[in-house]
Amino acid sequence: MFESAELGHRIPDEEYEAAEPGLRAALLDAQYDLLELRQFAVIVLINGMDGAGKGATVNLLNEWMDPRHIEACAFDSPTAAESEYPAMWRFWRSLPPRGKIGVLFNNWYGQVIVDRVERRSRRADLEQRLDEIRRFESMLVREGVLLIKFWFHVSRAVQKQHFKALEKDPRTRWRVTRRDWRAHDLYGRYRDVAGQVLRSSSTGEAPWLIVDGSDANFRALFVGRTLLSAITKRLEAVRRKWAPRQTAAPLAPAVDTVNLIGSLQRQEMGHKEYDEQLERHQGRLALLTRDDAFRKRSLVLVFEGMDAAGKGGAIRRISAALDIRQYRIVQVAAPTEEERAQPYLWRFWRHVPRRGKIAVFDRSWYGRVLVERVEGYCSEADWMRAYSEINDFEDELAAAGAVVVKFLLAISKDEQLARFKQREAEPHKRFKITEEDWRNRERWDDYVQAICDMVDRTSTERAPWVLVEADDKQYARIKILRTICERLEAALDHGRKVEGKA
Amino acid sequence: MFESAELGHRIPDEEYEAAEPGLRAALLDAQYDLLELRQFAVIVLINGMDGAGKGATVNLLNEWMDPRHIEACAFDSPTAAESEYPAMWRFWRSLPPRGKIGVLFNNWYGQVIVDRVERRSRRADLEQRLDEIRRFESMLVREGVLLIKFWFHVSRAVQKQHFKALEKDPRTRWRVTRRDWRAHDLYGRYRDVAGQVLRSSSTGEAPWLIVDGSDANFRALFVGRTLLSAITKRLEAVRRKWAPRQTAAPLAPAVDTVNLIGSLQRQEMGHKEYDEQLERHQGRLALLTRDDAFRKRSLVLVFEGMDAAGKGGAIRRISAALDIRQYRIVQVAAPTEEERAQPYLWRFWRHVPRRGKIAVFDRSWYGRVLVERVEGYCSEADWMRAYSEINDFEDELAAAGAVVVKFLLAISKDEQLARFKQREAEPHKRFKITEEDWRNRERWDDYVQAICDMVDRTSTERAPWVLVEADDKQYARIKILRTICERLEAALDHGRKVEGKA
Repeated sequence: MFESAELGHRIPDEEYEAAEPGLRAALLDAQYDLLELRQFAVIVLINGMDGAGKGATVNLLNEWMDPRHIEACAFDSPTAAESEYPAMWRFWRSLPPRGKIGVLFNNWYGQVIVDRVERRSRRADLEQRLDEIRRFESMLVREGVLLIKFWFHVSRAVQKQHFKALEKDPRTRWRVTRRDWRAHDLYGRYRDVAGQVLRSSSTGEAPWLIVDGSDANFRALFVGRTLLSAITKRLEAVRRKWAPRQTAAPLAPAVDTVNLIGSLQRQEMGHKEYDEQLERHQGRLALLTRDDAFRKRSLVLVFEGMDAAGKGGAIRRISAALDIRQYRIVQVAAPTEEERAQPYLWRFWRHVPRRGKIAVFDRSWYGRVLVERVEGYCSEADWMRAYSEINDFEDELAAAGAVVVKFLLAISKDEQLARFKQREAEPHKRFKITEEDWRNRERWDDYVQAICDMVDRTSTERAPWVLVEADDKQYARIKILRTICERLEAALDHGRKVEGKA
Repeated sequence: MFESAELGHRIPDEEYEAAEPGLRAALLDAQYDLLELRQFAVIVLINGMDGAGKGATVNLLNEWMDPRHIEACAFDSPTAAESEYPAMWRFWRSLPPRGKIGVLFNNWYGQVIVDRVERRSRRADLEQRLDEIRRFESMLVREGVLLIKFWFHVSRAVQKQHFKALEKDPRTRWRVTRRDWRAHDLYGRYRDVAGQVLRSSSTGEAPWLIVDGSDANFRALFVGRTLLSAITKRLEAVRRKWAPRQTAAPLAPAVDTVNLIGSLQRQEMGHKEYDEQLERHQGRLALLTRDDAFRKRSLVLVFEGMDAAGKGGAIRRISAALDIRQYRIVQVAAPTEEERAQPYLWRFWRHVPRRGKIAVFDRSWYGRVLVERVEGYCSEADWMRAYSEINDFEDELAAAGAVVVKFLLAISKDEQLARFKQREAEPHKRFKITEEDWRNRERWDDYVQAICDMVDRTSTERAPWVLVEADDKQYARIKILRTICERLEAALDHGRKVEGKA
């Protein structure tokens, strides 16, 4: 969830100062168009970690836009008077009318998260309150509200640094309270609970947008541009009388060039070490998948990555360690006619392994948020809802005992070029390189953006993404094998412990 | 939920035989159009009480339509082989492709209901599984599936009678098993659990349709006509390329003239008894609302009914017993401009009472599923989703301690005519009768249908509807006063017991 937001995005002052006036003017225009059209309200939710610049950003929005038509509202624990009413009453009172923008600070998520962090509520309570929130937000969306949800994130280290800096300066010392330090002590729990809450309330119609809050310039441009693009898009849709289905909430536009893929470091492994490690991990995998405890589990491996990233080679190193009766490699290509006549996930459900079995997916259900998104094979609303449908799907697999391991093989653009050329040069490899590969390469940046959104939105506790630095094939293969072994060992050990107790 | 389905709908054989051939032919046509267009799949869920004719109806559908393009599938507890896969796997396998009809018997709801009835799962487990089901069905709908959910209902007495009749006949005796009688013993729990499940999974896009299963002719025509109208409507929408939002799932068409309102019996009360009872219950209400325990509760009274049904008079008899500082009467008319700029329920949230207070709604949020539905002031999708939004709203009121009592004042068409004429004749009452009242009267049957659907879909444990026979004003007023006192007494007593324990 927070992968991309912990990369330390930064915008230099000159760049910010060059961009700000244009953005302000465009936002103000959008605000007046919204007011004039009076067809829908905009609700901006502001939540997040302490010290991530939430307050500063709200102030900025007020400064940028016409404050007469933007209503900022902050919520703390309910007051005595508010407690006399049903819990949602105070939020209903603060909804902006059509034509206006409401900025709701801490809103309906604030108390829900704090209660869980402080252990005043149980997991089941949280689930129930999230269900109520989803129904409430779904109602808002159906009433035409444009709902934009920002989560301001900072890493533990940045939070600490921020508090320390404030304390050092006598003019800002008062701003850091014991409550802030207590929140910092509970950072890990905040991050966990926030992850659960965000995943479970990120829907296709109202997804969360994670803001890297560590740099004031970055977060201001990020929030401003997202808001602008969301309002502009919806205004256009309303003017053209498009059906609401065609206008999902926005994903964030790229504000700088920092991203998950770009921040990976090149890793290498020599031949000798590779040979040793390969033998060791293949042996380990062979034993694990033949372990009695594995009969109650299953293994689902997912491989995604750029063309020529080495998925096939990595998969062959895995299958070499497996019993042929136990595994199946599923090559995912364009759907058949039969498959197109079914809901999207149907063609993957067909290949879900039963207990004791292994399915290796060479490309997967993530096609919807990668190639189908980038190439426009499905509508935006369709791929937007796919994130939460995929999370639900993988939750079901995990609930049935499947160990789900997802690998994203990342290579640099240069490395890809070298491999393409090599393939063209070698007659027996020429079938592996087509016109389409060259075309995809032209959309490299779009694919990288799609990959980053995918990792942020579908890396869950139960089925996390593993980013594999794949410029060096040997390093990549070993990292993959080792990760599978580790995840399997943890799962089988856990199973044994549970049985031991019973 | 089951109010309308326990009225004992019947269709005489002659009428059935006259209707059946046409219905069959139309269904077959619709089936071929569906197949030819190949744009969406139809999924029919069949669930319900034992002995309510589920199996017979599935057989009938198979007989009426082309069995090559209709796939019936029955689900029991998962087999050993099925248990090796994730829980939803077997349902995914049985989804019909676009162009076909799948009839799923006991489906994803079967096990969920039985587990809860047999207390193998807790309330929280049930909630979680229903949440998963809602997400799954929402995915299906977004994938274009036309999802039609039938619940076959019979009363406890009819179920018993049905089993007895089968047992008596040597040719059918084998069909009644110990499992059936056990289900009969648990009838009350089945009804309760089913009520919870149906309310919580009845969404605007996929509502439940309750079938009175007591008469074979009725249920066959009901299911057949509903299916026909749903498929025909969707085919037309697809041909005209309407947005999916404009085609919610269907409500059931009226198959006979039996309904909740029509089945009310005229009730009367003489002057002397009225005077006595009025004094007694007004006194009782005065004491209850001044009780210390009431400071932690609130009271929400809702009045709906036909024009001239006597809402105003009944409300005056209540307010006479109340402290003016404590209550507020909310006359609901057309929304103001400010209110129209907000989500539908906003204008009612404004009047939600705080603890210790009383709000009396003379007409209410039910306007959306009554006048707005009948007069076409909002789209079908909007009023269809209103049922569950209203249930959520009232749940929130109840969760905050509000006692919610809803009265539907029902008068006969003759009585209304008499009252209209009387109003026109008396100069001081002439303001009470307008052109609009006469126009509404012309749509009497549509209003009755809307009222019946409303009661079926929004009569919940926490906020049940009270149908008031209102042809005699005195009887109606006393029934209303008495009901309020009883509900308040129960709530305050319960509160005291909980406190006594603490």
